[in-house]
Amino acid sequence: LESGTFVDVKRMLNGLPPGDVAHLLESSTPRFRHILWKMVDLDNEGDIINELSDELRTHFLSDMDAAEVAQITEHLDDDDVADILQQLPEQVTREVLDAMDHQDRARLERVLHYPDDTAGGLMNTDTITIRARLTLDVVLRYLRRHEELPAMTDSLIVVNRNDRFVGLLPLRTLLVSDPSRTVREMMDTDVEPIPAYMPDDEVARLFERHDWVSAPVVDDDGQLLGRITIDDVVDVIREDADHSLTSMAGLEEDLDTFAPVFRTAQRRAIWLGLNLITAFVAASVINLFQGTIEKVVALAVLMPIVASMGGIAGTQTLTVLVRGMAMGQVSRSNGAWLINRELGVGILNGMLWATVVAVASSVWFEDWNIGMIIAAAMMINLVTAAFTGAALPLLLKRVNIDPALAGGVVLTTVTDVVGFVSFLGLATLFYG
Amino acid sequence: LESGTFVDVKRMLNGLPPGDVAHLLESSTPRFRHILWKMVDLDNEGDIINELSDELRTHFLSDMDAAEVAQITEHLDDDDVADILQQLPEQVTREVLDAMDHQDRARLERVLHYPDDTAGGLMNTDTITIRARLTLDVVLRYLRRHEELPAMTDSLIVVNRNDRFVGLLPLRTLLVSDPSRTVREMMDTDVEPIPAYMPDDEVARLFERHDWVSAPVVDDDGQLLGRITIDDVVDVIREDADHSLTSMAGLEEDLDTFAPVFRTAQRRAIWLGLNLITAFVAASVINLFQGTIEKVVALAVLMPIVASMGGIAGTQTLTVLVRGMAMGQVSRSNGAWLINRELGVGILNGMLWATVVAVASSVWFEDWNIGMIIAAAMMINLVTAAFTGAALPLLLKRVNIDPALAGGVVLTTVTDVVGFVSFLGLATLFYG
Repeated sequence: LESGTFVDVKRMLNGLPPGDVAHLLESSTPRFRHILWKMVDLDNEGDIINELSDELRTHFLSDMDAAEVAQITEHLDDDDVADILQQLPEQVTREVLDAMDHQDRARLERVLHYPDDTAGGLMNTDTITIRARLTLDVVLRYLRRHEELPAMTDSLIVVNRNDRFVGLLPLRTLLVSDPSRTVREMMDTDVEPIPAYMPDDEVARLFERHDWVSAPVVDDDGQLLGRITIDDVVDVIREDADHSLTSMAGLEEDLDTFAPVFRTAQRRAIWLGLNLITAFVAASVINLFQGTIEKVVALAVLMPIVASMGGIAGTQTLTVLVRGMAMGQVSRSNGAWLINRELGVGILNGMLWATVVAVASSVWFEDWNIGMIIAAAMMINLVTAAFTGAALPLLLKRVNIDPALAGGVVLTTVTDVVGFVSFLGLATLFYG
Repeated sequence: LESGTFVDVKRMLNGLPPGDVAHLLESSTPRFRHILWKMVDLDNEGDIINELSDELRTHFLSDMDAAEVAQITEHLDDDDVADILQQLPEQVTREVLDAMDHQDRARLERVLHYPDDTAGGLMNTDTITIRARLTLDVVLRYLRRHEELPAMTDSLIVVNRNDRFVGLLPLRTLLVSDPSRTVREMMDTDVEPIPAYMPDDEVARLFERHDWVSAPVVDDDGQLLGRITIDDVVDVIREDADHSLTSMAGLEEDLDTFAPVFRTAQRRAIWLGLNLITAFVAASVINLFQGTIEKVVALAVLMPIVASMGGIAGTQTLTVLVRGMAMGQVSRSNGAWLINRELGVGILNGMLWATVVAVASSVWFEDWNIGMIIAAAMMINLVTAAFTGAALPLLLKRVNIDPALAGGVVLTTVTDVVGFVSFLGLATLFYG
C-alpha cells in the first residue's frame, strides 16, 4: 500500500460500521488481518472487538493490558463488556474492574454474577423504568429529559416501588394512546419476565416464538435486573446452530475460518487421533476373520460397502436427533417414538438396499451366496445404525455428554464394527 | 382425554402464543399433532401456520380450500401471506388472491412479484411514512390518530413527494427530541435502504452487522416498497445455519423431526442410493488388487484405516469451507490462501498420524514394510483429503452446485478411492 492510499483506506475503514469491519477481519488472512487492525482507530476498537467471534477476540485482546481493555470497553453494553472480561485471565479482569468507576463496576458485577450462557449473562442493565400510576403525558415528558434512549428500546419497563417487575409499556402503545391515560391502563401485564438463570438457548426460543425485540430479566424475587435485546439473541441462535455443524466434524464452534496452519493442525489432530483409535478397533475386528478372507477375497472387496452404508444411515438419524434436540423438540416423552420411527425407516431402507446390494454383488461375483450374505449383513447394519443413531444421542444427553460432539465417533465405531462382524461372521459360518 | 379435560386443554391451547403452539406441533408425533390441530380455533390457525416450518405448513394447508386459506391469512403480514401462497398450487393461490379485496391483493402482488429468498419477498408493506418538512409535534399528533402501530416499528420512514426513501426517524429520537424541531433536522440519512432484489442471506448479514430491528426496502428507483423486520430475518438466519447441517447429511432443510416412517424412509433412500454407488466405485478399486490381498491378508485388515482417516480429515476441511462460505467469509481472493492452509494442515497431520500408524501397524503385524506402506498411503490420502475438502466446495460454488449437499459424497468417494489405490497400489509394487 502506498502512503497516500494508506490514509484513504484508513479513513474508509474507520468510517465503516463496526460489524462491517469485524466481518472484514473475520474474512481476512492472518497477515492482512494484522495490517487492517493496525489501521483501526482506538475509539473504534471496542465496538469492533465486540462484534468479533470468540477466537479472534481473544487473539486481539491478548496484546492489550488492563488499562487498554478498560478504555476500549468503556462505552459498550454491560453484557458485551462481561463477555469480553470472561475471556480474559482472572488477573486482568480484576484489574479492568478496578480501573472502572464505582457505578460501572457495580453494574458489571451484577452481570458477571451470572454464567454467560444464561439470561443473566446476556442482559444489559440500561433499562428505562417507569411507575404504573403515572400518566402517559408525564412519561413522555420524562423521556424528553433523556439525551437518548438505549438502543433497541421498544418498551418501557413498569416496576413497583420495590423495583419488582409489573408490566411493559410498548413505545408503540405510548405513541398512539391518549396522553391523559395512566400507565396502569395501557401497560401490557401478560408478559412473563425472564428468570436470570434461564439457559440462553431457551431465551432464544422465547424470543423467536414471541417475536420480541427486548425482554425484561428478573431475579428469583421478581426484582428487575435488566433486559435482553434481540441483537444478543441473534448471536445465540447463530452459535447454537453453528454448534451442531462444527461439533459433528470435531471442530470447535465459533472457529476462525482463517486461523494459521499450525494452530489449525493442532486442533484438528485430536479428532483425527480419536478416529484413528476407532479405526484400529474396526481393523482388529476384521483381523479376527483373516482365515475367511484368505479363502474368499471378494469379502475384502465388499466389506467396506456394508460398513459405509451403515455409517451414512446412522449419520442421517444422528443429525435429525441432534438437530431436534438443539431445537428443543425432543424430550423423554417422544424419544421412544423417534427410536421406533427410525427403526421402521432402517427396516424399510434395509430391505430396499439389501435387495439391490444382493443382486449387484451376486451378478458381479457370480455367486448367489455372497449376495445373500451381504444382504443379511446390510439389513443388520442399517437397523443397528438406525437404533444407535436415535438412542445414542438421547443416552448421551441424559449423562450430560454433548451428542453432537461424541455422537459421530461412537456411531461410526458401532456401524463399522457391526458391519464387519455381521458380514465376515456370516461369511465364516457359510464358507468357513 | 376425557371430555372435561378436553375443554380445558382446548382453552389452554388457544390461550398460548401462536409460536408456542407451533413449537408444540413441531415437537409432537403425527397422531398427537392431529389431535392438537383439531383443537385450535379457526381464528388462531393463520398465526400458528405462519410460525410452522415449511413441511408442516404444507401438510396442514393441503387440507384447506382457497376460501379457508383466504380467511385464516386475512390478518397476517404480507410477507407471511406471500410465503404461504408460494407453497400452494398455482390454482389455489389464484383463487385466494381473487377472494381478497382489491387493496390487499395489490399489496400482496407487490410482495409476490419478488422471489421469496430476496429482500422483496421478505418485506411487509405496512410502513408508516412521514415527510421531512413536518415538525415532530405534527408527527406525534399524526401517530396518535392511528389505532396501533405495526409490530416491530422502531423507526418512521421519511419519503419525499415521489415516495422515494429519504431517511429514517427512529422512535428513540422522536421521543427525546424537542417537538418543535423538524423531521429533516432529526432524521438519520446515513442508512442505506435495502434493494428489493438483494438475496435474503445478505439481508440477514446486514441486520446482524448493524443491529437493526427493521430496515426499508426500495426498488431500483429508490422508491419505497416496504420494510423488513428482524423476526423474519431471524428465520432466515436459522434456516441458513440449518441448511449446512442437514444438507451435509443428505437431509432436506427445514425438515419435520416427527415425519412418519414411510415419508422419512422414502426421502432418505435417495441419499443412501447415491452413497451405495460411490461405495461400489470404491469396492471396484479394491477388486483390482485381489491378488495382492490374497498374498498379504493384513492389507484387508488395515485398508479401511487409510480410507477412514482421509474421510475424517476431508470432512473437517469441507465443513470449515462450507461454513465459511455460508457466512460470506470466503471469496475468490482468499480461497487460494485457504487451499494452501489446508494443504499445510494436511501435511502436518499427515506426518504425525502416518508415523503413529506406521509404528502401530509394524508392531501389530511384525512387519516394518507394511508400516512404511501404510504411512506413505496415509500421507498421500490426508493431503488429498485436505486439497479436495478445500478446492471442491470452491469449485462447486463456481458452477452453482450447493457444496453442502454435493461436497460430502464427492469427497468421501475421492478419499476412499485414493485411500485404497495408494495403500493397495504401493503394497502391490512391494509385495506383488
